[in-house]
Amino acid sequence: MKARIKIMLKSGVLDPQGAAIKQALNNIGFESVTGVRQGKVIELEVDGPNKSEVRSEIESMCNKMLANTVIENFEIEVF
Amino acid sequence: MKARIKIMLKSGVLDPQGAAIKQALNNIGFESVTGVRQGKVIELEVDGPNKSEVRSEIESMCNKMLANTVIENFEIEVF
Repeated sequence: MKARIKIMLKSGVLDPQGAAIKQALNNIGFESVTGVRQGKVIELEVDGPNKSEVRSEIESMCNKMLANTVIENFEIEVF
Repeated sequence: MKARIKIMLKSGVLDPQGAAIKQALNNIGFESVTGVRQGKVIELEVDGPNKSEVRSEIESMCNKMLANTVIENFEIEVF
């Protein structure tokens, strides 16, 4: 089963990488860009009996290893 | 206007970061994970008159700076 996890910094957390991208875009002429946040996306291939079990396993992966839940939020999609 | 860009390595391109995540997940007991690819997600706030102009501006940002189109694919969503 295919799944996708999107991991973003929580909204109050400073995102220097996003700020750098915004600055660089503004510098090369894209002045309409007023905000940028960068995150990670992880696409997984997981063996499992059904969507809900796969989802709960991925939730456990995120909490144990993939995301730093102190500063990051994650969203899971299972296809 | 809010937009999201997903940037992933093309399918033939080796993804050592994804392979490391897969190995680490397998090592801590998630043996059902058979494949991992890691990519980037960039969320933008862009001023623009309508969705299609914003989309084409973001396409230009990706081609000029955000993505390495030799080895990466990008997908754009405008909300």
